[in-house]
Amino acid sequence: MLKNSDAASAAPALADVEAAAKRISGQAQRTPLLHYPELDQRLGTRAFIKPECLQVTGSFKFRGAYNKIKSALEAGKVPGVVAFSSGNHAQGVAAAASLLGVPSIIVMPEDAPRIKIANTKALGGEVRLYDRYKEDREAIARAIARDKGYVVVPPYDDPAIIAGQGTIGLEIAEDCARLGVSPDVVLAPCSGGGLISGIATAIKARHPDARVYACEPARFDDTTRSLAAGKRLENSGSETSICDALLSKSPGEITFPINQRLLSGGLTATDEEALAAVAFAARRLKLVVEPGGAIALAAALQGRAPKAAKCMVIVCSGGNIDDEMLQKALQN
Amino acid sequence: MLKNSDAASAAPALADVEAAAKRISGQAQRTPLLHYPELDQRLGTRAFIKPECLQVTGSFKFRGAYNKIKSALEAGKVPGVVAFSSGNHAQGVAAAASLLGVPSIIVMPEDAPRIKIANTKALGGEVRLYDRYKEDREAIARAIARDKGYVVVPPYDDPAIIAGQGTIGLEIAEDCARLGVSPDVVLAPCSGGGLISGIATAIKARHPDARVYACEPARFDDTTRSLAAGKRLENSGSETSICDALLSKSPGEITFPINQRLLSGGLTATDEEALAAVAFAARRLKLVVEPGGAIALAAALQGRAPKAAKCMVIVCSGGNIDDEMLQKALQN
Repeated sequence: MLKNSDAASAAPALADVEAAAKRISGQAQRTPLLHYPELDQRLGTRAFIKPECLQVTGSFKFRGAYNKIKSALEAGKVPGVVAFSSGNHAQGVAAAASLLGVPSIIVMPEDAPRIKIANTKALGGEVRLYDRYKEDREAIARAIARDKGYVVVPPYDDPAIIAGQGTIGLEIAEDCARLGVSPDVVLAPCSGGGLISGIATAIKARHPDARVYACEPARFDDTTRSLAAGKRLENSGSETSICDALLSKSPGEITFPINQRLLSGGLTATDEEALAAVAFAARRLKLVVEPGGAIALAAALQGRAPKAAKCMVIVCSGGNIDDEMLQKALQN
Repeated sequence: MLKNSDAASAAPALADVEAAAKRISGQAQRTPLLHYPELDQRLGTRAFIKPECLQVTGSFKFRGAYNKIKSALEAGKVPGVVAFSSGNHAQGVAAAASLLGVPSIIVMPEDAPRIKIANTKALGGEVRLYDRYKEDREAIARAIARDKGYVVVPPYDDPAIIAGQGTIGLEIAEDCARLGVSPDVVLAPCSGGGLISGIATAIKARHPDARVYACEPARFDDTTRSLAAGKRLENSGSETSICDALLSKSPGEITFPINQRLLSGGLTATDEEALAAVAFAARRLKLVVEPGGAIALAAALQGRAPKAAKCMVIVCSGGNIDDEMLQKALQN
């Protein structure tokens, strides 16, 4: 557990996000800011989509992972990196490590989807399986780090990870400037809070009046409730959701104080609404988005976002969806 | 029928494409040039995707239509525009006309998919249905143009249409310059030839050594065969294909001489290969692409493109696919 002062000092500044942007340049996809007249009509405001499903490995996670590992290399020798994840973070770390010539071990539950294990291996990661009911994945990762001198790449609670995800906010601000628009409402999915805290760091520095909202699945709305309560609250732990990328138990120690300072609140959407947003993205936006990646779009389509006076930006954070789930979305 | 000299003088120059880029700026989507490490591996070269499925109305057609109507407005009064199409061109013209405040009549076959008729109406087009077995759609359009003083917006055989589609080539050249790469193989889908002739006009002006290829469905390979024969040949007319956007009977009168001058040849792919490319695009590129829009990607995935020494650019031209067809692609 960090002390409050440690957590506050760990918050990246705009300069850290700008440094991250330099590090990932040429390796990460510079995703566009997409405009669809039909989405404007539907939302009753000028709206833009930031499609991180088009990012390398199919989600924003590559940005933070690459920034973390590259920063570690700049600071000294890195014999290898270790991470724990059953999904998008695993692939982001494996790909970033391979590109930087660093070995990676990814600790994954033995009942993770075969396709995600296979993808992680294909990207160059060594997969260490564990029993999620009997073993502690963080303890396994820490043991590997200690024994091999590997650097841990955490999923969200780390300044370099947050700064890496924050490059999305920087790109949004740059593209808005180019288009001559000023974002006043920004929505992004939220699990542990690394993505939204990074985005808010960049957006609020460039557009102090913009309101930034964390979007979460109903019943996994720990950040929404924690922001309202003024302290970190946990989810029940007994719920399930198709938004498999957004199942963190509570806000992060480092991310939460940032989000308390910078966010205007949280929004939620149900699994059914997320699935409808997946279908809308495929049919109308021509983008393949996974349920968790579509949660901010879902909240917007349900009319839950505050009215944007100038323009609204919606981050679609990932597109790693099984064929069956995409087909299910298209059947409704 | 145009004389050869007329066809040659109708060919747009780079300056016409640059003027088109100015006209569509801020209205058309500035689509990105996407890079996927996995696609590089699969194709054995550095490869980029130009995703025109993300264009306004879901296909590249908006570019040419907007440039044509805006050019006509700059030249004088335009009481309205008329076009004939059962698909992407219909939607592109309706949307461009609405944005420019001009009435549009779209002549569509009465057995066109309901969704395409509905979309065209939703975009502000007045739909005039005709019987495709008994009536001549071009005669109907010409009669409307004559009676109402409307401007005809042809699907491909028109200098302003070709220049508008050529803005894709201009953007490819710009983005390649920004990335420090030089495209040496460029693939794009081809039906009447408006898209590929426009792209080649821009690409060959900026990169004279680049080889540009028209990609067509097997049995609708009129441009491929015509280029080889040195004269315009027709398709049999008795065939069918799921690539509903690529069913023109023969190369255009204006487009063909341009393509003869600028293209290195044609490539083909079967319907099954197009469907496999649709699945690849959804699963790996996170893009929804229609079968015809994926025909260049299909040819590349089948290894039919010549080896690119530096980098290959593949245009995915549209994403207006029915739910059922996308689901079918994902079942294989």
